[in-house]
Amino acid sequence: MTALPAVALTNDLLLRALRSEPVERPPVWMMRQAGRYLPEYRAVRAKSDFLTMCRTPELAVEVTLQPLHLVGVDAAIIFSDILVVPEAMGMKLTLDEGIGPQFPVPVRTATDIARLRKVDPQESLGYVLDALRLARHEIGNRVPLIGFAGAPWTLAAYMIEGKGTKQFALAKRLLFEQPAVAHALLDHLATAVGDYMVAQVEAGAQVLQLFESWAGALGPREFRTFCLPYLARIAKRVQSTGAPLIVFAPGAGWALGEIADATNAEAIGVDWHTTPQTARQLTQARTVALQGNLDPCALYAAPAKIRQRTHEMISAFGPIGHIANLGHGILPDIPPAHARAFVDAVKEWRWTDEALARSANHAQRAGAP
Amino acid sequence: MTALPAVALTNDLLLRALRSEPVERPPVWMMRQAGRYLPEYRAVRAKSDFLTMCRTPELAVEVTLQPLHLVGVDAAIIFSDILVVPEAMGMKLTLDEGIGPQFPVPVRTATDIARLRKVDPQESLGYVLDALRLARHEIGNRVPLIGFAGAPWTLAAYMIEGKGTKQFALAKRLLFEQPAVAHALLDHLATAVGDYMVAQVEAGAQVLQLFESWAGALGPREFRTFCLPYLARIAKRVQSTGAPLIVFAPGAGWALGEIADATNAEAIGVDWHTTPQTARQLTQARTVALQGNLDPCALYAAPAKIRQRTHEMISAFGPIGHIANLGHGILPDIPPAHARAFVDAVKEWRWTDEALARSANHAQRAGAP
Repeated sequence: MTALPAVALTNDLLLRALRSEPVERPPVWMMRQAGRYLPEYRAVRAKSDFLTMCRTPELAVEVTLQPLHLVGVDAAIIFSDILVVPEAMGMKLTLDEGIGPQFPVPVRTATDIARLRKVDPQESLGYVLDALRLARHEIGNRVPLIGFAGAPWTLAAYMIEGKGTKQFALAKRLLFEQPAVAHALLDHLATAVGDYMVAQVEAGAQVLQLFESWAGALGPREFRTFCLPYLARIAKRVQSTGAPLIVFAPGAGWALGEIADATNAEAIGVDWHTTPQTARQLTQARTVALQGNLDPCALYAAPAKIRQRTHEMISAFGPIGHIANLGHGILPDIPPAHARAFVDAVKEWRWTDEALARSANHAQRAGAP
Repeated sequence: MTALPAVALTNDLLLRALRSEPVERPPVWMMRQAGRYLPEYRAVRAKSDFLTMCRTPELAVEVTLQPLHLVGVDAAIIFSDILVVPEAMGMKLTLDEGIGPQFPVPVRTATDIARLRKVDPQESLGYVLDALRLARHEIGNRVPLIGFAGAPWTLAAYMIEGKGTKQFALAKRLLFEQPAVAHALLDHLATAVGDYMVAQVEAGAQVLQLFESWAGALGPREFRTFCLPYLARIAKRVQSTGAPLIVFAPGAGWALGEIADATNAEAIGVDWHTTPQTARQLTQARTVALQGNLDPCALYAAPAKIRQRTHEMISAFGPIGHIANLGHGILPDIPPAHARAFVDAVKEWRWTDEALARSANHAQRAGAP
């Protein structure tokens, strides 16, 4: 399998923003945009469970495309789940309504870890690659297609706990009690995630996002020891493909600059705890785009207020290197009209030539050696 | 009821650190130090449920004193729960094993809020005040006794959701959809918490801690709107008594300086996400002590490593205005010997006269107008 030929996209705003090129307005998409807040998604979901949707390319692609038509976002992100990678290692994954994803047989010891399978993405994650190929075919050259994976610490935390928890105390216990065992697991995961992301690019993903969803469970020292080096390793693999990478580590706003330095990613996700101003300060003098960061709960507000908050956010991030998004996934009970109010507010924005010129000069100065 | 007469404490390290006076070593206590990690606590708990323990001064005081004898901490904190205040407003509170505290009938509308009772602490929270009086009698003048309460946003979040949740989306929805209703609830809570804290001082509490446990559920703008002004109002009430105040808002490390400015509290708690260096930077040029912040999960490590991490933490906070503590409550499965390793590591520390003198000069300069 080789990468699909590069084509000129009709809407290449996301790719231009990822290169920190001047754009007339920021591109916009939403984390979990193919999700339960859309009645059209719930209609598909009513007929098959979540994991079946992930494993059936036609269903995955159907919901992947929905927000393009229904909400008008500037990019599609393939419908899938970060836990497909541990599943490909041989862990049984269940997903019961109201309980969330679970591994009934968690990984807790060196023996458990040694038993995990090496992942060949073509073989055990072929259904995601098929979905990417089909989605890319369906989307044509309208907008970019984003692939994604969970980062090693987040996957390890789920695998050790067996489920999402409040404090991930079992997973952290392993880091503090048996750091070498923890590193063995993280190493195994980093290899699998790297291979998987490369395979996603070959199958048609034009942008990749790495989700370190549980970064906030680690203090600075553990983040630097058990998280950052593995993000860097995967980023290097992705960069060998030429596809741009977005790294999102919610709950570790303090680390934005360190993540940018360690990964050289084209963009860093910003959660809603961190102001755009702080995010820019932490990453200044680096050529890196920032993605985010409206509080998903702000979409509970009336559309006029959503519009105002969205414009304030765009203005605060500034004209160069910003991808408009939420600061976390969209919540399932948000009215679709409110999601559209957010997207529309971004799409009506226009940077003036003057603002763009001012920012380009500034970026040039900051980027100078 | 008037305040108990002030007496010279045998161990006044905590009070001196709260005044940012030089101390030979930092005082040490642990959040949730009267808790399940102690077999002696579990023995009391085996005979009566959590709420009965809160409501029975003899039982509350028995477990309040345990960590003094068993772990050797420099302060006692009264055994109670932050949710006693909403309960005193007439909300039914249940606490089932494994589920955690719940309000089966949550508060969701302006009508619900109007129905909440005004709290007279002497009447509806008299059992906590009795426990404080008894604890103070039992402790004598050995160490200071800490009283505490939950802060308005945290209590409101529990009251609206009915229980602890991952995202507090219902509570945040109220902030975004009906801010005036949210402010009415927060206002009612701020009055009750202020009265309650003043009553605690009158009953013998010598230090107070205000827990804004769910500060991390709010982004900067909502924190400044729905959280900070109420912390400031309560702090002002507490300051009228002369008792020193510690404000702890985990998950809002970025706000340490703003909290110090808004509350003028004697100390600000630092969670384990924030390094001591960052915490000092954020509060520099203010006379405020910092409390924290070892990751509770670090107590899973071997005692020698606990000792090393504890010494590194003390060294990083520096000699003036530091109260050694964890960066969150101690976890129930920590071996008591590891808790003692933490406390012992603090107690064996000695600042040199030179370090103290250097810091005192620096503090003087920083404090100069």
